[in-house]
Amino acid sequence: MTNGTSNVAVVLLSGGLDSATTLAIARDGGYVCHALSFDYGQRHRVELDAARRIAAHLGVASHRWVQIDVRGLGGLAGSALTDDVDVPKDRDEQQMSAQIPVTYVPARNTIFLSHALALAETLNCMNIFMGVNAVDYSGYPDCRPQYIAAYQAMANLATRAAVQGKHVTIHTPLIDWSKPQIIKRGLELGVDYGLTHSCYDPTGDTGRPCGRCDSCRLRQSAFTQLDMTDPLLD
Amino acid sequence: MTNGTSNVAVVLLSGGLDSATTLAIARDGGYVCHALSFDYGQRHRVELDAARRIAAHLGVASHRWVQIDVRGLGGLAGSALTDDVDVPKDRDEQQMSAQIPVTYVPARNTIFLSHALALAETLNCMNIFMGVNAVDYSGYPDCRPQYIAAYQAMANLATRAAVQGKHVTIHTPLIDWSKPQIIKRGLELGVDYGLTHSCYDPTGDTGRPCGRCDSCRLRQSAFTQLDMTDPLLD
Repeated sequence: MTNGTSNVAVVLLSGGLDSATTLAIARDGGYVCHALSFDYGQRHRVELDAARRIAAHLGVASHRWVQIDVRGLGGLAGSALTDDVDVPKDRDEQQMSAQIPVTYVPARNTIFLSHALALAETLNCMNIFMGVNAVDYSGYPDCRPQYIAAYQAMANLATRAAVQGKHVTIHTPLIDWSKPQIIKRGLELGVDYGLTHSCYDPTGDTGRPCGRCDSCRLRQSAFTQLDMTDPLLD
Repeated sequence: MTNGTSNVAVVLLSGGLDSATTLAIARDGGYVCHALSFDYGQRHRVELDAARRIAAHLGVASHRWVQIDVRGLGGLAGSALTDDVDVPKDRDEQQMSAQIPVTYVPARNTIFLSHALALAETLNCMNIFMGVNAVDYSGYPDCRPQYIAAYQAMANLATRAAVQGKHVTIHTPLIDWSKPQIIKRGLELGVDYGLTHSCYDPTGDTGRPCGRCDSCRLRQSAFTQLDMTDPLLD
């Protein structure tokens, strides 16, 4: 297999803690990074601002956006991230892992990776970085290693680049890391987590985290385990 | 494996001859069909009108649209279908099959199928119909049977439905049919091909086919083999 431009990568960037860390890891690995973010009608626009801040903070060759109007699909119905569905609060880790959360968005990572694949081919770079994590929050089917492996197999049949022998690799450096491990590595690489956004239900325009949704609780628990305070709560 | 609602399907509908025939086949197979079309900045908007006409003509439970603004990706650069790149004309079938055509759009079917997968899960229907064809126009990597099989394998790891044991099937009834076979079957099923649109380079606002691009030539050759005139040219 021939690779495309081997030190160039597309990095999926949501503005959250995991994707920020993933971008820092890709840059540390010597990749020239093109960040890719999505505006798909998230209820909370603060996420989009966080992606912009992180791209500027860590430095990228370009930051591209795909705007997807899914109102025709009924808003990718039924997810607390896009619809008017209550975000669950104050759950312990056992409750969190008991079932796939209501924040699940149908086929979201599949859609994200598909656009990343198109961009990678367009840029002749055959590396995609994604901050999925199957440990602390294993409810999402499209964060599992077997899903990523199947996606990569499909991607290597999907494109002109693949037919020409350029192998695409989907890098998921965080996939088996705990949340404290992720934060520890990100801090070593200089990530300012005060610029990231994780909350599923932030307060109004200020974007202040609620502190009670699954995402906030996992994040705070991780900082606590590191004997630190989340800079977002300072 | 349990199926979702077994007689409901998402049908990808571009407005072309193949997708129109596929919709007719799905309906003939007893499926309640939800058509899904994409507005991704095609140079020729006549394609979008054709999709609307076909959905109305054949009858669908719903017709949904996803609008994708890919300008942030540089317009899925380098394709004659989205960019200002010349559409090749007057090529014979040997020339057509010699290489992947400039009308190739990076990862297009992967993006389309990913949205179809999201919609299928949202509707609790686990059938997706797509009019890909690997015979007459085999240059597209994402029209090959091995690609479709890999996509289906990935899709069955990607969703909450999959985790719950609902198996998604990607139906590609035309994949090994010749273009005359496709038209013959469509005519048996009552498809009015005068409503479809195939040309890569239609004339101005009238949408009249150029008659010289690969798509026009394959279409006309198929009607000729059936001793018919393409109703679009009547």
